[in-house]
Formats: sequence, structure tokens, C-alpha cells
Amino acid sequence: MLNFALIGAGRIGKMHAEIINLNPNSKLKFVYDVNQEFAKNVASLSNASVVNKAEEAINSNEIDAVLIASATPTHIEFIKMAAKAGKPVLCEKPIDLDINKVNKCKEELKNIKSPIQIGFNRRFDLSHSKAQQARSKKEIGNLEMIIITSRDPAAPSLDYLNAAGGFFRDTTIHDFDLSRFILGEDPVVQVSAFGENLFDKNAKTAKDFDTAMFILKSKLGVLVHINNSRRAVYGYDQRVEVFGSKGMVISNNQTPNSIERFTSSSTSSKETIHFFFIERYQQAYRDQLESFIEMINSNSKPKVTFEDGRKALIIANAAYESFEKKKIIDISYD
Amino acid sequence: MLNFALIGAGRIGKMHAEIINLNPNSKLKFVYDVNQEFAKNVASLSNASVVNKAEEAINSNEIDAVLIASATPTHIEFIKMAAKAGKPVLCEKPIDLDINKVNKCKEELKNIKSPIQIGFNRRFDLSHSKAQQARSKKEIGNLEMIIITSRDPAAPSLDYLNAAGGFFRDTTIHDFDLSRFILGEDPVVQVSAFGENLFDKNAKTAKDFDTAMFILKSKLGVLVHINNSRRAVYGYDQRVEVFGSKGMVISNNQTPNSIERFTSSSTSSKETIHFFFIERYQQAYRDQLESFIEMINSNSKPKVTFEDGRKALIIANAAYESFEKKKIIDISYD
Amino acid sequence: MLNFALIGAGRIGKMHAEIINLNPNSKLKFVYDVNQEFAKNVASLSNASVVNKAEEAINSNEIDAVLIASATPTHIEFIKMAAKAGKPVLCEKPIDLDINKVNKCKEELKNIKSPIQIGFNRRFDLSHSKAQQARSKKEIGNLEMIIITSRDPAAPSLDYLNAAGGFFRDTTIHDFDLSRFILGEDPVVQVSAFGENLFDKNAKTAKDFDTAMFILKSKLGVLVHINNSRRAVYGYDQRVEVFGSKGMVISNNQTPNSIERFTSSSTSSKETIHFFFIERYQQAYRDQLESFIEMINSNSKPKVTFEDGRKALIIANAAYESFEKKKIIDISYD
Amino acid sequence: MLNFALIGAGRIGKMHAEIINLNPNSKLKFVYDVNQEFAKNVASLSNASVVNKAEEAINSNEIDAVLIASATPTHIEFIKMAAKAGKPVLCEKPIDLDINKVNKCKEELKNIKSPIQIGFNRRFDLSHSKAQQARSKKEIGNLEMIIITSRDPAAPSLDYLNAAGGFFRDTTIHDFDLSRFILGEDPVVQVSAFGENLFDKNAKTAKDFDTAMFILKSKLGVLVHINNSRRAVYGYDQRVEVFGSKGMVISNNQTPNSIERFTSSSTSSKETIHFFFIERYQQAYRDQLESFIEMINSNSKPKVTFEDGRKALIIANAAYESFEKKKIIDISYD
Repeated sequence: MLNFALIGAGRIGKMHAEIINLNPNSKLKFVYDVNQEFAKNVASLSNASVVNKAEEAINSNEIDAVLIASATPTHIEFIKMAAKAGKPVLCEKPIDLDINKVNKCKEELKNIKSPIQIGFNRRFDLSHSKAQQARSKKEIGNLEMIIITSRDPAAPSLDYLNAAGGFFRDTTIHDFDLSRFILGEDPVVQVSAFGENLFDKNAKTAKDFDTAMFILKSKLGVLVHINNSRRAVYGYDQRVEVFGSKGMVISNNQTPNSIERFTSSSTSSKETIHFFFIERYQQAYRDQLESFIEMINSNSKPKVTFEDGRKALIIANAAYESFEKKKIIDISYD
Repeated sequence: MLNFALIGAGRIGKMHAEIINLNPNSKLKFVYDVNQEFAKNVASLSNASVVNKAEEAINSNEIDAVLIASATPTHIEFIKMAAKAGKPVLCEKPIDLDINKVNKCKEELKNIKSPIQIGFNRRFDLSHSKAQQARSKKEIGNLEMIIITSRDPAAPSLDYLNAAGGFFRDTTIHDFDLSRFILGEDPVVQVSAFGENLFDKNAKTAKDFDTAMFILKSKLGVLVHINNSRRAVYGYDQRVEVFGSKGMVISNNQTPNSIERFTSSSTSSKETIHFFFIERYQQAYRDQLESFIEMINSNSKPKVTFEDGRKALIIANAAYESFEKKKIIDISYD
Repeated sequence: MLNFALIGAGRIGKMHAEIINLNPNSKLKFVYDVNQEFAKNVASLSNASVVNKAEEAINSNEIDAVLIASATPTHIEFIKMAAKAGKPVLCEKPIDLDINKVNKCKEELKNIKSPIQIGFNRRFDLSHSKAQQARSKKEIGNLEMIIITSRDPAAPSLDYLNAAGGFFRDTTIHDFDLSRFILGEDPVVQVSAFGENLFDKNAKTAKDFDTAMFILKSKLGVLVHINNSRRAVYGYDQRVEVFGSKGMVISNNQTPNSIERFTSSSTSSKETIHFFFIERYQQAYRDQLESFIEMINSNSKPKVTFEDGRKALIIANAAYESFEKKKIIDISYD
Repeated sequence: MLNFALIGAGRIGKMHAEIINLNPNSKLKFVYDVNQEFAKNVASLSNASVVNKAEEAINSNEIDAVLIASATPTHIEFIKMAAKAGKPVLCEKPIDLDINKVNKCKEELKNIKSPIQIGFNRRFDLSHSKAQQARSKKEIGNLEMIIITSRDPAAPSLDYLNAAGGFFRDTTIHDFDLSRFILGEDPVVQVSAFGENLFDKNAKTAKDFDTAMFILKSKLGVLVHINNSRRAVYGYDQRVEVFGSKGMVISNNQTPNSIERFTSSSTSSKETIHFFFIERYQQAYRDQLESFIEMINSNSKPKVTFEDGRKALIIANAAYESFEKKKIIDISYD
């Protein structure tokens, strides 16, 4: 049984608290949030205690692992605190919006062995991981193209946008990581990026995009397309297509049930797809925690490393550079 | 090049005229219909001549084959006329509504070698015939069940109903034949039938059904379900499911294009399926004629024989008996 | 928080124990099984205690509700014991295989108000219940036909078959209930049944069927088809089609993920469907318990009553009579 | 009845000859090909005459229209010949590979009123045109993204590649035109292009690509993604996705029949999709000719103009420039 400290008790933190308690091998012990009401609420639902300072939880002898779901700018501080306390960390993405801070953190922690896992939950989705296996097991022969469609159901609030750090670093970063996951050893070396503000006034105010498209190129010449939107009226559109010399595998959307309707105007109509990430990636979030627990218990390495988080951010930064310079950008991971 | 006489120039006759002319190996020469206007109309579209009597066309030296698409009660008369003239016949289903007349015709023609093909066009449908192959090639292992769904888009007129000879003999007869086609050598030996008048006033007036369900049993114990309706608002519903020890094959419905729609209320919506038999079975009607022409040219046997027409009628009659006696009826083909 | 006694700790009992513990409003307190090892195993997984006699659990003051998942012949004994102790009961189907015993039990309990819910879990399946709503909310207009396909993935052991009470009463009984659920107030009044032994030697030894087809007719003339098999190599085939004057709704099969494969020999291939009922109806079993708990807490009536269990058995018995007499049987529920 | 001269009797020319003869309002009269054997073969199948020089056919009084399906470098010569003879032209794409020649031709023909239609057949595909209507009829609200997937089944010969003029100008040009078709009045203003040689040795020899990805941007900010491959083992992959503020429409792939297979290893497997353009776009080629004939008969304007051909080529050229300069290129149509 692993006892967890949860740092951050907002929407995502609350979801993680529930998942920790559902897992028979983990228990939520302490909750910290800068907003004490949030912390109390989550703690009461989980039979956990609230602490006033993150240190209290992280450094407690009763704690075996730390889950960081606080605001992005605080991630590095808590990662370092936990790492120095020798506690394994599962930290929500992105590590930080500033690559310099991330690099500095990497340097600081280079001698610390406590494992850090980054929350790219989509790698644990049953369907997406089958698509990855289609590449790694050569089921589709040699990989030639990847097409990732990732569209949110509805645009977020202005507050969210102002804090999130921009469409490419906050949202597309999942797809950059998913591209890396499917590509395996073959690194992304180029990116071309287009961003638009087509419909969302908040995005305009925040000088952010609501619509974007990308092409990535790997060292071996595999081409990857990503398209993103902050609004898809039919639900949270999450598709991955993997194409190679021997075939194609598509990880398609999922509906909450298997009903099909036939009327005088249409046939085979299904329900709208899962509303958003909490519904769509429920299994993935659970398996992410399961994998994190197994990693600790078996003293192995995390399936998604700090370095994975750093590299996804480097691609996002290169995408911004492509957009600004109207160029195809070569990517360096140094 | 085979020259055809067409007997009957109504809706179906007109369709056959077009198909004869599209086929590079056949040509329409003479058209007969009891209604001269119908005959003239079809003849003019096809560069063919109208005759005043069916005999003129059937007995003409210029004619190589006869296609009978006249009213059902006249089929036997024209079949006999053509057979005695040594002309190959392609006759629309059913042969007749009266099994005694059919048996008598069989007896009369037993020494005549001129081939007679019955128009069970569905046997030539690309998808249904793949389902049949799944059985004959043992792709699904041993056959255990067949499920046939066959629903018309809209109920016909009272005139049609009064002339058609009843739901089981006019409509279900296609499905009885399709069952026999898929079963192959294994004969249908039992039937249980339910007929209802649920919505169609004309059917009520004509003392006919608009909704029906059947279970057939073959000698080897294969169970066959058929369901029929005279109205499906989403189009002409034509499905065949073949189930066995190693799997299942479904010949599913077809839409006129491959569009899928995604809105805030539904996803993956396709167009309504093909409206009716002329749209749905266009390819089947063409291949039926092709097969008939090849049969003549190669001096082989028809793929759908007079005996197939007779046996389907016997099953229909047994179905009526089941309905009337509320019993499961044993079928004899003698 | 409701404390449960679990009577019967075999495969199904164990599943129910897990579901009781997952529900935040219920807890497993006592476990009884005629096989003490089974009871111990389930109790240890659930932090519950083993009792030596069912009475100890059922009559305990600590117990608020009883879940009966023991062998079918013992259901009535435990139902009566719980009912007389004033404890709400959730009992697995069927109530019993002998309609006389069921009728006698009904009579004995007629003055007892303690609620009894029968475990027809499929009524709680999200997709099947949407199909039912398509009828109850008139989405498909007037109901005209129901088609239920229900095929197990693999045949059970001879031991199971010898105890189960026959294909119609053990397996099809789910589909008889589902038919009644969708028909609503309109009762089933006729049945025609076909049973075959096509492949399973154990079924032959047990003088049972492995393949069956049925047509039911409701008072209003709605026709219902059911087909069953004890083996479908592609998984647990569970489909419900509801057809009416304004359209059709199909509750289709479900795959464990949303992968589609495209190769040089096929396209759009999905995974095999859910293996069996524990995988397929997981959500339904959970919602069944949820509904049972809500019913107790709100002092309302069960969604699936003792009478529902009794009527499904009456249809199963009529189906056997139809098979034996080769007749369409009129059903009486008295 | 329109009499056609066919210039070019290779694979595509032969297909056009058949389509001309199938249409009740057109007839093939003369065939010209630099290879007399090709011309003779097509002429004999069509009851047409071979001419020794294209002029003979084009200038003949018996000819009402000219269909140009010769090698690309000869298109302009024959277009001018026909235009100056006052004959309507339907010319295969691309007009030419050299934009300067195309511009010069445009200049030369500016005072000639004889209509010229370019063979972008996909605009006439029933499904793709429904996708276009989803935009033009605002069914999907405001257009935001287009995703075009276009992959050939197998790589062509080295001879073909050497003559074709490069992947972007020969193959992607269809997709550039389709993008313009769906965008309507909103012009493409930017392009980013990636080309790779991943598997095809002939392409390597010809210094051509076999795999490519593009992002286009329209004046209004609509983003368009195109991906191309010269090989898809599952068939000719032709999909168009149109996404907007109120939903999405996908023009999906089509299989030659509606069979679905269920085995112990997969479910819902369909046949491989249509092999190549002659199978997939048969209806489109027929409707393209129909539209051309109607245009002539009604004295209206072609649905796909010389200017459409010119603009698609300009986008292809900009794509090459993007690839070479590793930049996002601004497009000018002057």
C-alpha cells in the first residue's frame, strides 16, 4: 500500500484523488492546495488530511509518493522538493512553460535517483497504445505517417487561457508527446506550425490560438500531422492514425454506448462521443497510476520520464518559432 | 449478340429493357404488353418494335431469348409458349401463385430442354453472394443460423396488393429463395410463420399482412429467421447474417454515398440506405442477365431453375398453413 | 451505508462482492456459501466475515440487504428467509426452474412488503435501456418488431448444464425478460420455439440445446425474434434491434477499445467483442446494485420485480411446450 | 447527340471512350493517338474511326467536342487547336507542368469563347461533393479545417514517374483543386510542404517523392491538411474531412460490397476499399462527362475552368518552393 500526498486539489487534483482511492494498492494521506477550501473538499471525500504547507506532506514519513497537480508554474518547485526528499513523483504536464527553468531543474536533479513520471496520460489509453504497438511490433511494416486529430469539446475560460501558457505548450504538447511515443527511438527533427484565432474571443483577448495545424518530420523521414481545435460540437475528438508499408491502424473515437439510430433522414447515427478528457481517458488515468505504482514497487524506471516532458516542450517551442518566422524549424534537444 | 423479346412493359419490364440494352451482348427486339402504351413507351426508348400478340415476338426467328415481366397469372402461359418454341426464358418471380398450376406446368415441360431461369435476382447481389460463399467455402465453419431482414421502404397501393397474391408468396418468397440459396444442398423441412396487420390500411382491405416473422429449419438443423415489413422509413432494409462454428458474415445495408455526419446531437450518421430494389439491386439485375446470357451461350444450366421457383412457393404455402393452423409445419416438396 | 449479506460465493457471487465494495453506499458484511472455501476467499477479498449458516447472515441486525447468488434451486428458500426477516433481496435469475414453486412462493409472500428485485441485469445496460427508451419515448413511433441476438462465447461445462435447468430457462430467460422490458405494458401472448443440438457434446449428454430460435407475439401484435447460441467465436454477441413506424434503434455490440485495422486483406477490422457477461455487463451490474440501493433508500419499488421473474419463466415454459408440441403456444400468466 | 474526338488512347483515354459511349447523349467518332495501335484498339471497341493527325479529328465538321487525354506536354497544343476550331474541350489534368506555358496559353485564348473544362473529376464524386455542400450550405457552420487523405494503392512505373512531372504537380494537384473546391470563394494564400522518399526505388531514381504532407491556409484562416502516399496496401485511400463551428462531415472510403466478417481474431472486417481511381471514381467520371455535355447544350460555363487548372498548378509550384526553401510560402495567382 502506497500512501500519497496530493499537491493541488483543483479539477484534475480531485480526479487524481478519486483514482488513488479506487486503486487497491494506494491511499491518499495528505492534500495540499494554495486554496484551503479545495484541499478540504478533496480530503473529506478521501478520508485524507489537509496540510498547510506542501513540505509537511512531501516530507512526512508517512508518505511514499507525491502526485503534483498544482498550477504549472509551481510544478518545478514541488518536483524538486519531492525529489530531494527521495519521494517518487507523478507530475501533471507540462513540467513548466519555460525551457530554461526545465533545463535548470534537470541539471539540479541529475544526481538524484528518485523517479519522476510526467502525466502524459494518453500513452496509457488502451486504443492509442494499440496504435503504438502496431508500429513497435511492425504490424504495419515500416512506419511512414502519423495523423493525430485532437479537438476539445469547448473553449476554456479566459482565466484558464491566461494561465495555461498558450495552445501549443498546454494542449498540443499532448500530441507532441504522443507523436514521440509512437515514433519510438526515431526523434522529431523538424516542425512547421500554423495557428489561427477563428472563433474564440477569449483566445483573442489572451492572444492565443483556437485552431492549429502542424507537420513534424522524424529523423527517418516519417511525416506526422497534428490538428487541434478548442471546439468540436460533437465531443472530445481524439483520433490517432498510424500508416505504414503493410497497413494502417486507426485509434478511433469512442461513444458512451453502442446505440445506432435509423430514421427517415439518416442511418447508423451514434451518440456524440465522450464529452472530455475525464470521460475519455478515465481508463488511461487509472492505468497511468497503476504503472506509476508498479514502477515504484519494482524499482524500475518511469514509462514517461522528465526527459519526455522536456522534449515535448522543446517541440512546442520550435512550433512557436515556426509560426513566428514562417519557416520549417530544425529542432535541437540539447 | 442475343435478341430479346420482352413480355410485359410495366415498371419491372422497363427496367429489364434498359438492362438488356446496356449489356453489350444483348439487344431488345420486340416488346409486348397487354397495355399497348406501355409497350410503345419501352420500345421507343430501346429502338425495339411493338408486337400485338406475345406469340409474334416469342415465335419470331429473330428472337433468341424471352424475358417475362408480365403480371404473375400470365407467367405460366408465356413460359410454356417460349419453351415450346425452344426459346430460353428468364421469368420474373413468382412462377405463379397456385402450386397446382406450377406442378402441372412442370409436368408439361418435363421433356423440353429449353432452359428456364427464375428471376430471384438477390442471388446475384455481390454482398449476398459473398455471404453464401462464406457458407459454401466453409469460411464460417459449419452453418448454424441464418438471419434475413427484408423490409420495403413503403407500402404498395391497394391495386398492387390485390394482384400480388399475398405477402408470403409475393415478398417473402425472395427470402425463402435466399434461405435455400445459402443452405445449398440442405433442404428446408419446417416452417413457423407469424403475420400481422399493424399499420397499412390497404393491407387490411386486401386481407393481407404488413409485418411478418418466420423460423425455418433445415434437414441438418440449421435455423433460419426471416423478418419482413412493408415499411421502413430509413429505406429498403436488406440484410443477411450467416452464422457458423467459425464465425459470422453479415451482408449489410448500403448507402448511396460514403458521407458521415457529426453534429452536436449525433455522430457517424450516414445517409438513408438505398430507396428500393431498383437502386439496391441494380448490380444484381445486371449480373442476373449476364448470367442468363452466358448460360445460353455456353449451353449450360440456369443458376436459378424452375424447380427453385417451385420450391420457394411450396415454402410460402407451408408458411400460410403455419399461420392458419398455429403450428410448425413439416414441408414436403413432392 | 447499506450492509450486505452475500449468499453464494461462486463466480457470480464473487463479482457481486466486488461491486458491493466498489459502491460508496454499500459494504459487504457477511458471506455464506455451502462451500466454505468459496466463502472464505470472497470474504477475505472484501473485509467481510464468513458465516456457517445463511440464517446467521440474513437475520443479523447488522445486515440491511441480502444478495442471493447461490445455486438456483436454493433461491426460493433464501428469498423467503430474507423476506420474512424484513430484508430487501436482490436475487439472481431465474427465481427457480419450477413454476409451481415460484407460484407457491408468490402466494406465501403476498403479505410481505420487503422488496424483492430479480437480477435481470440487462435492463440496466446503458445501450439496451436506450433501445427501450426509443420505444417508451415513441422515438421510433409505434413499436412493430424486436430482434434480440444473444450468443455466448463458448459452451459451458457438463456440470453447469446439468444444474442450469435447460437453455430456455437458464439463458433465453434473459431475452424473454428483455422482450418484456421493451414491450412495456403490452404482454407477450404467443410463442413459437425451435431448439437444436448442433455442436456441443455436453449439451447432447445433458439433453439440452446449444442453438435456438423463437418468435414471440405481443397482445398488440408486435413480433419479437430471439436467437441464441452457446458459442460465438468472435465473443459475447449481444444485440437488440427495436423497429417501429418512425425508425429503428440498434443496441449493437461493444469492443474493448476503438482500434480499426486496415491491411491488404481487409479494412475497418475491429477487435473481437467483449468476452462474456462480466466484461460486457459490468456497467449494468453496477447500475443494478445502484438501483437496488436507491430503491431501498427511497422506499420505492424494485425496477425488476418477483413478478417479472415469474413471467419470464412462464414464457420459457411455453417455449418448451411449443418445441415439444410443434405448435405456436398461447401464454397465460395466471 | 454530341460527337466526340478523343485525343490520346492510353489507359485514361480508353476509359473516357467507354464513358462517352455509355452516355446516351454522346458518341465517339474519331480517335487519335501518337501510337496508332492504341488508337485502333479504342476505336474498334467504340465503333469509331482512327485518324492519322489530331487536326483531322478536331477540325472535322462531324465533331462537336474534344476530349484530351494525351500526354501532359501535348495538352496545351491540343487545347489551342480545339479552341481555335471553336470546339468545346474536356482536358485531363494537369493543363501543363510549366506555369509559363499555361499563362501564355491563357493569354492566347483570352478572346476565344469556346469552353474549356479541366478534368478534376473528384469534384463530381457524390460523396466529396456532399462534403463541399456541407460547407457551401453552412451545414457545418463556419468552415475551420479541411483534412484530405489521398493515397494510391501502389507506386507507378519509372516511365510513368519520369513523364508525370513530379508528385505535387501530378498527384497532389487533385487535392489542391479539391481544397479550392471546398473553400469556395476563399482563396488559398499560404502553403507549407514536406516531401519524402521512404520506400519507392523508382521514385528515388526519378528524384521524386513517394510520401508528402502539406498545410494550406486560406485568406479567412481556414487550415487545410493534405497527406499523400504512392502506396496503401488496403486500396485507394480517398477521404475528405470538413470541420466547422457546427460539426464535421467526412467523405469516407468505399468498399466494393457491404460484407462484414466476424472471426475469432477480429470483428466488423470489411473488404479492402476500391482498388484505384477507375473503380473509385467511376461515377465521378460519368458525371463529369454528363456535366460537360449539359454545359455545351445549355451554353453555360464549365464547372471546372482553365483558371481552376492554372491555380492548382500555382499552388503545386508554391509547394515545391516551400519544400526547397524550408519556408511557409505566400501564394500569388497573378
